[in-house]
Amino acid sequence: MEPGSKMMSQFRLALIQLRVSSVKADNLTRAGEFIKKAASQGAKIISLPECFNSPYGANFFPEYAEPIPGECTRRLSDLAKECQVYLIGGSIPEEDDGKFYNTCTVFGPDGALLAKHRKLHLFDIDIPGRIRFQESETLSAGDSLSIFETRCQLLVYPGAFNLTTGPAHWELLQRGRAVDNQVFVATASPARDVDSSYVAWGHSTVVSPWGEILAQADTDESIVYANIDLKKLFEVRQQIPVLSQKRADLYAVEWKKV
Amino acid sequence: MEPGSKMMSQFRLALIQLRVSSVKADNLTRAGEFIKKAASQGAKIISLPECFNSPYGANFFPEYAEPIPGECTRRLSDLAKECQVYLIGGSIPEEDDGKFYNTCTVFGPDGALLAKHRKLHLFDIDIPGRIRFQESETLSAGDSLSIFETRCQLLVYPGAFNLTTGPAHWELLQRGRAVDNQVFVATASPARDVDSSYVAWGHSTVVSPWGEILAQADTDESIVYANIDLKKLFEVRQQIPVLSQKRADLYAVEWKKV
Repeated sequence: MEPGSKMMSQFRLALIQLRVSSVKADNLTRAGEFIKKAASQGAKIISLPECFNSPYGANFFPEYAEPIPGECTRRLSDLAKECQVYLIGGSIPEEDDGKFYNTCTVFGPDGALLAKHRKLHLFDIDIPGRIRFQESETLSAGDSLSIFETRCQLLVYPGAFNLTTGPAHWELLQRGRAVDNQVFVATASPARDVDSSYVAWGHSTVVSPWGEILAQADTDESIVYANIDLKKLFEVRQQIPVLSQKRADLYAVEWKKV
Repeated sequence: MEPGSKMMSQFRLALIQLRVSSVKADNLTRAGEFIKKAASQGAKIISLPECFNSPYGANFFPEYAEPIPGECTRRLSDLAKECQVYLIGGSIPEEDDGKFYNTCTVFGPDGALLAKHRKLHLFDIDIPGRIRFQESETLSAGDSLSIFETRCQLLVYPGAFNLTTGPAHWELLQRGRAVDNQVFVATASPARDVDSSYVAWGHSTVVSPWGEILAQADTDESIVYANIDLKKLFEVRQQIPVLSQKRADLYAVEWKKV
């Protein structure tokens, strides 16, 4: 990160594949330790996984939920500032006015809250004999998009796929998004815990704008590091100029509310 | 196909991975033979590959181009009617008013032209030391979307990837589109001819709405068959209801011109 530059063109990214336990305070403490470790290894952008301070399950969300700002997100702000990093706070169950949300917060190196995003598309799945899981049983969906300024270009998805969708779709969707948008994509999953009610797929991953897997965890608790060079992004966009060939005269994605 | 039903819920699809030569008339003759063979095997929807009557190359397009209707598409209409099939005519170089297009025609079982679609996003690639190919050197892009009624739900892409984009993106993009839209996807490529100036990837493929590869050619000339059961599509959409969860209150794809 050069002083005065508007864009970080090279930086180290870290994805924390946390093993989430049923002890909320312990999850937060251990997340903090991993964040400090990643920062000490030079990471400038660090992401926690989806639902990192609570077991992932419709019945757990109300019990583990807290307001934002609250204890958990104040701690994340402190950690971002202490470590001088951009911190993507995975997600936590949020309580607001009697409703519950699956909410991601993002903090800058000065500890400021850059974004608070409530999951818009709740995950409901019902495959008889395989898996049934309905976020919508206890969660409400957010009602706005969240946009914030950063100094780099990157798609980061904290996510918790499972043993059914994981092998079928986890790599596929993030590699697809990377190629469609010619952008780096990162996903941060909880570690796999076969004793939990919802068994996460793990495999936190970083994908290049060409769709290559640059780094990937297995299923255990770990930190995934990737050195991102945005030169690659500009190269790929020059090599196959799909973005500049978009036909705004024929179609467009319209944002109705931000 | 039950008499009187509005929707074909089960049907056989055939993708003709034609080995395209430099002899235009021969390409059309051989395409016709493969179409008849596929129909005799029960295929109700048959697709030819991109640029099936001409070598694929900016310098070839003007030489091989013809108007629509013209000799080639009249023959395709006859074949669709004779074989009682939906025929997706891959694409051919089209000439119109001194301009050239990469154009797909679709014919119904009565021989009627259902759609004429000019490629909107021309394929330009320039990777130093690997491959340079620019459709835009001789082709013009189409200026409208093409929508037509069918009796089934299916995405079919006649396409000619190469030895650089093929291994990186061919399977990925079609499996991604299948899962994103929870729909069957099929791709029809020319067979690989290592002596041609543009070496096609081959690997014509059929993908399920869950992202699984149902059938796939290797690189040689062949017909890929798949028995499609749209029950699978409705099952997947019920199991993970991503389409009904779209947030039309927040975003939408807007069609500006059809």
